[in-house]
Amino acid sequence: MSARPDLATLRKEVLEANLAIAERGLAKFTFGNASGIDRASGLVVIKPSGVPYWQLKASDLVVTDLAGTVVEGTLRASSDLMTHLVLYRAFGAIGGVVHTHSHYATVWAQAGQALPCYGTTHADYFHGAIPVTAPLGRTAIATEYESNTGHAIVECLGAQDPLRMPAALVANHASFCWGKSVAAAVEIAAVLEEVAEMAYHTRTLHPDVAPIAPELLDRHFLRKHGPAATYGQPDDAR
Amino acid sequence: MSARPDLATLRKEVLEANLAIAERGLAKFTFGNASGIDRASGLVVIKPSGVPYWQLKASDLVVTDLAGTVVEGTLRASSDLMTHLVLYRAFGAIGGVVHTHSHYATVWAQAGQALPCYGTTHADYFHGAIPVTAPLGRTAIATEYESNTGHAIVECLGAQDPLRMPAALVANHASFCWGKSVAAAVEIAAVLEEVAEMAYHTRTLHPDVAPIAPELLDRHFLRKHGPAATYGQPDDAR
Amino acid sequence: MSARPDLATLRKEVLEANLAIAERGLAKFTFGNASGIDRASGLVVIKPSGVPYWQLKASDLVVTDLAGTVVEGTLRASSDLMTHLVLYRAFGAIGGVVHTHSHYATVWAQAGQALPCYGTTHADYFHGAIPVTAPLGRTAIATEYESNTGHAIVECLGAQDPLRMPAALVANHASFCWGKSVAAAVEIAAVLEEVAEMAYHTRTLHPDVAPIAPELLDRHFLRKHGPAATYGQPDDAR
Amino acid sequence: MSARPDLATLRKEVLEANLAIAERGLAKFTFGNASGIDRASGLVVIKPSGVPYWQLKASDLVVTDLAGTVVEGTLRASSDLMTHLVLYRAFGAIGGVVHTHSHYATVWAQAGQALPCYGTTHADYFHGAIPVTAPLGRTAIATEYESNTGHAIVECLGAQDPLRMPAALVANHASFCWGKSVAAAVEIAAVLEEVAEMAYHTRTLHPDVAPIAPELLDRHFLRKHGPAATYGQPDDAR
Repeated sequence: MSARPDLATLRKEVLEANLAIAERGLAKFTFGNASGIDRASGLVVIKPSGVPYWQLKASDLVVTDLAGTVVEGTLRASSDLMTHLVLYRAFGAIGGVVHTHSHYATVWAQAGQALPCYGTTHADYFHGAIPVTAPLGRTAIATEYESNTGHAIVECLGAQDPLRMPAALVANHASFCWGKSVAAAVEIAAVLEEVAEMAYHTRTLHPDVAPIAPELLDRHFLRKHGPAATYGQPDDAR
Repeated sequence: MSARPDLATLRKEVLEANLAIAERGLAKFTFGNASGIDRASGLVVIKPSGVPYWQLKASDLVVTDLAGTVVEGTLRASSDLMTHLVLYRAFGAIGGVVHTHSHYATVWAQAGQALPCYGTTHADYFHGAIPVTAPLGRTAIATEYESNTGHAIVECLGAQDPLRMPAALVANHASFCWGKSVAAAVEIAAVLEEVAEMAYHTRTLHPDVAPIAPELLDRHFLRKHGPAATYGQPDDAR
Repeated sequence: MSARPDLATLRKEVLEANLAIAERGLAKFTFGNASGIDRASGLVVIKPSGVPYWQLKASDLVVTDLAGTVVEGTLRASSDLMTHLVLYRAFGAIGGVVHTHSHYATVWAQAGQALPCYGTTHADYFHGAIPVTAPLGRTAIATEYESNTGHAIVECLGAQDPLRMPAALVANHASFCWGKSVAAAVEIAAVLEEVAEMAYHTRTLHPDVAPIAPELLDRHFLRKHGPAATYGQPDDAR
Repeated sequence: MSARPDLATLRKEVLEANLAIAERGLAKFTFGNASGIDRASGLVVIKPSGVPYWQLKASDLVVTDLAGTVVEGTLRASSDLMTHLVLYRAFGAIGGVVHTHSHYATVWAQAGQALPCYGTTHADYFHGAIPVTAPLGRTAIATEYESNTGHAIVECLGAQDPLRMPAALVANHASFCWGKSVAAAVEIAAVLEEVAEMAYHTRTLHPDVAPIAPELLDRHFLRKHGPAATYGQPDDAR
């Protein structure tokens, strides 16, 4: 017990993130979950399965190690736990993961299509098209389905920096988002939903529309991210 | 009078269900009604016809037997009463029925198309495409229209277990949903509307989209339903 | 002055109708107006032009005769006054008129298309497709434009009973609705918007969709209207 | 200091305009900014960069001259400052500029299409199709991108009077609106979003729809604007 880190702050952040995805309309019913990781100890705090957001308390959250062994909590962890853990193991720079069935992101996932970058709203947050996973095969569904979902996400991201491409669509399912913190992952999930809706309307208005020019994509992404960023105030940590 | 069961609890549940479909935006104006059945006595509690939800009181609800004879109440029952009764007679395991003209479910019904399963949001609640009735013929419309609507629903469901396919679309009309209780039927109606909207956007984004793979459909449906369910907490009664 | 009828009740109804179209989201900004008529005196009470709904008071309303001469009020009447008056003169059974630019009704008007009846939600209120006016010619726009808008509405209705077809779409403009009272016209405007949105989604989901069968149209319309109506409670005056 | 004009009123108007675009749902997150100009001194008051609307105070606003030199304020100005300044220099009659990523206006901008005038709702505020900029070339993006965005707007407006065409779409980006005051520019931004949404639905309902007839466009625009206006009350300053 003495070696156990104090996770009170992380619990609070994860609780707030789970409440935020419900309040922002990103997760209806119980369709979504958020988690955060304490990198020093490798412990993950995640929503319990099937508990309505309005009933959720910090003490209901489940703590596991990176292999999925529960170390704190009496409730069963989110059924998507193993997907979160694969992402934490693969993406060492991330501190939080958010999964939601938000409407338009799910629509693109159901259509099995990557989300093209059609404008600067998208380019301000994602450095290009948001990738979609290949469909899982029969075996991958039958055994360790949730872990295989995570592997499919990592694979579709390829060589991209997960902090420059902080989301992916899971075919026939929905979206996963991540960030330096669980709060950052919530913001990504909210912007993803907005740009997914804009892209739906852009594509249906003009089916042959081309994606944004690479120069404009870079201009906007780099205006907000990296050492040369000029957006916001100088002391903003981005 | 002595043989009459105490329906106070059922009245309360049916009142709450009727208020819930209005509050959740599933039933605008007076376009919807909910009922519940007491299986021991075979008595059904249903909304009266044309009464605005905000005026509705438990004492306004109408009680009938399974043949439609009013046994309690002074108001006229919902004009859809006979459809509800056909469903209660055909589907012995259900305890509640909800009818709404919720927007996107009605759109699929007006299009005369079954609602395909395009993703796991749908697969978590419905074990496949949600069927649509065949159009009623001239005679079926002229005589016992509301009962014939019920028969068309039962027919389109075919051999499917009504608790695995807890909804149907009535062509050129709207949806009917059911469940073990009237509260469960309300939840089904809410999820139906969400997946109907997702499917509308998926189909219009990508007209040739294929439905979900059978393995993924089973994986998600059975994760939430039946003896091998792993979703939610162990003591959840599903 | 002694011959002037007491219009206090009508003023109150017209004020409430103007507030209702704003509160229900049917009229954004100042895009809409409602009027009512006192048939005994032939006096019409209408919204003044360009006054925001939240500022509107009963004393701001303008009273005119059927020729458009102001008999009470210091403000300029709605710029659509003459359209309302043409409708009152042509349709002797109506008591109220509502004009709004509600979103989907306006979309059909902009598309220059009659609004087909695709389902029973529509059939419960309108006995068939809601007609659209022919475009006004250059001369009709240049001179007495607002009256000519009214004449185009009357013309597109043809021989239909205005209480069975209580709305029309004005090409490239928006909708006009009417009813026995101004409150009834507001209800029609609200249902029109809902069925216009349903029809938009039905048509874009399934471009070749057929309208409702005539038998089903009659079954639903007559269930709610006329001497054989069975919807609602027996003492409902419909 | 003695020569510095009192900008307290303008600061208040600009603060209210920035809050209004957030409250009206035109600017989610921090995607938008409003500014106003004091023509006597040539000083512009604008939102600081990246500050959430709910935190914004009048004292946070940044004051610059028309060349972009900060004369009051400690925060960095909106990253879109130089675009605003180009518009103030080119359009001498305007007093306020509003930039938002409102949903449907952005959709048309992403589609790279001018927004056609399909009806009188649009014609009441904009004298014809709302133009879209040509895409910026590689050099224009690399150097002085924000100023070049302003130049592209001025170019796409051509010879049109900016008070008769008070908005433009920036390709792959979003919209800019302007007016005699910053409050007027907010109203334009709100109406733009509404007509952009109506036009999206009109076009997708009926892809071959024709724009409004020139006579009807003039009739409605001139009913609300210019010396012959008859809309609103006689003392309205429009």
